Amino acid sequence: MDDAKLPTVGVLGGTGPQGRGLGLRLALAGYEVVLGSRSPERAGDAARGLCAEHGVDGALLTGGGNHEAAARDIVIVAVPFDGVRPLLEPLGDMLAGSIVISCVNRMGFDREGPYPIPVAEGSATELIAELAPAARVFGAFHNVPAGRLTRDLGPLDMDVLVTGDDIHPDVRHLVESVEGVRAVPAGPLRLSRPLEELTAVIIAVNRHYKVTSGVRLTGLPDSA
Amino acid sequence: MDDAKLPTVGVLGGTGPQGRGLGLRLALAGYEVVLGSRSPERAGDAARGLCAEHGVDGALLTGGGNHEAAARDIVIVAVPFDGVRPLLEPLGDMLAGSIVISCVNRMGFDREGPYPIPVAEGSATELIAELAPAARVFGAFHNVPAGRLTRDLGPLDMDVLVTGDDIHPDVRHLVESVEGVRAVPAGPLRLSRPLEELTAVIIAVNRHYKVTSGVRLTGLPDSA
Repeated sequence: MDDAKLPTVGVLGGTGPQGRGLGLRLALAGYEVVLGSRSPERAGDAARGLCAEHGVDGALLTGGGNHEAAARDIVIVAVPFDGVRPLLEPLGDMLAGSIVISCVNRMGFDREGPYPIPVAEGSATELIAELAPAARVFGAFHNVPAGRLTRDLGPLDMDVLVTGDDIHPDVRHLVESVEGVRAVPAGPLRLSRPLEELTAVIIAVNRHYKVTSGVRLTGLPDSA
Repeated sequence: MDDAKLPTVGVLGGTGPQGRGLGLRLALAGYEVVLGSRSPERAGDAARGLCAEHGVDGALLTGGGNHEAAARDIVIVAVPFDGVRPLLEPLGDMLAGSIVISCVNRMGFDREGPYPIPVAEGSATELIAELAPAARVFGAFHNVPAGRLTRDLGPLDMDVLVTGDDIHPDVRHLVESVEGVRAVPAGPLRLSRPLEELTAVIIAVNRHYKVTSGVRLTGLPDSA
């Protein structure tokens, strides 16, 4: 794909750890990214901070309001679960025809560690698909630790399992623009729940070993 | 661990594909295994068939009734989900003090492929823990494809994520006696659901690529 024709990217919840990390990685890969936030000022600060810290071209990573982020070709939803409905109910129609990628996980933490919280719609990804019915919705990046995206810019050595009917070439390209990541089609949206909930398992493993682990599938063809 | 002191193993639902496959692998690793079934005759036939086909010592892999399998040191539950309650309600008390390993997944299949079916107790593993309250219950082997256990006896190249409080050394030894498998402690039993439901994702990926894939976690210490 010619970089000049890369789709533009908006990140809803772009000032959170996952949003900032994905925005940074995608800008480093040449995407023009706007981090969206309720506070455009805070989003601008976050973008300028990442650019300064990691030597990113300030034209590729900017901040703005969530409406501005939602107007991009590809919209990544990286808000906490409780923010999904209030954010997308007013924005849903704007997303008609857009590619929307959910990396939302609904999780709780207590003395025994992280645990998944069930979502009435099946998964956060399916909730987003309900709220943006004319968008092309995919689930991805659930298990990619936010901290790992900004702490060390080396390759990640993990797969991103993507749910949604027929992984869109633009989604595959975006996912694989993060160095060291392979996009693996993981079935229809209804299979999002296990992948969202798996995040709690990954965090439990990370706490046990004091590492940042990722998921790889073995046995796939080399061309996968 | 001295092989002479290996705990004995029983497999409930030992004539199903997962039960037969695990029984075979464990007998090949030196465990004395009894495949349990409602029909001891069928279990005996399954055991003799596996021994003849794969050159296993007939003393290490035998068949018997489910009661006989439930009397072993380590009991693997490999029945279909709908069989768990009818099987374990009468057997639960027998399992007091035993190690019980659940590899049960509750899944459905339709035109769109495999999908997880929610379990009221959270997961099949937690249901088993309720039915055998004095057993030490673990979840494991959920994502290991049954066919792969018997079709090709080479090493598996996959991790087995084990749920349960503090993975028991006997459980780790048993899991890792399957060549190519690393046991990874994956948190308390309440994290079993994502791992059980992940099986539907693995099967969807396998169908897409026409392969038999497995899960590996990257980024763990070499000693894991």
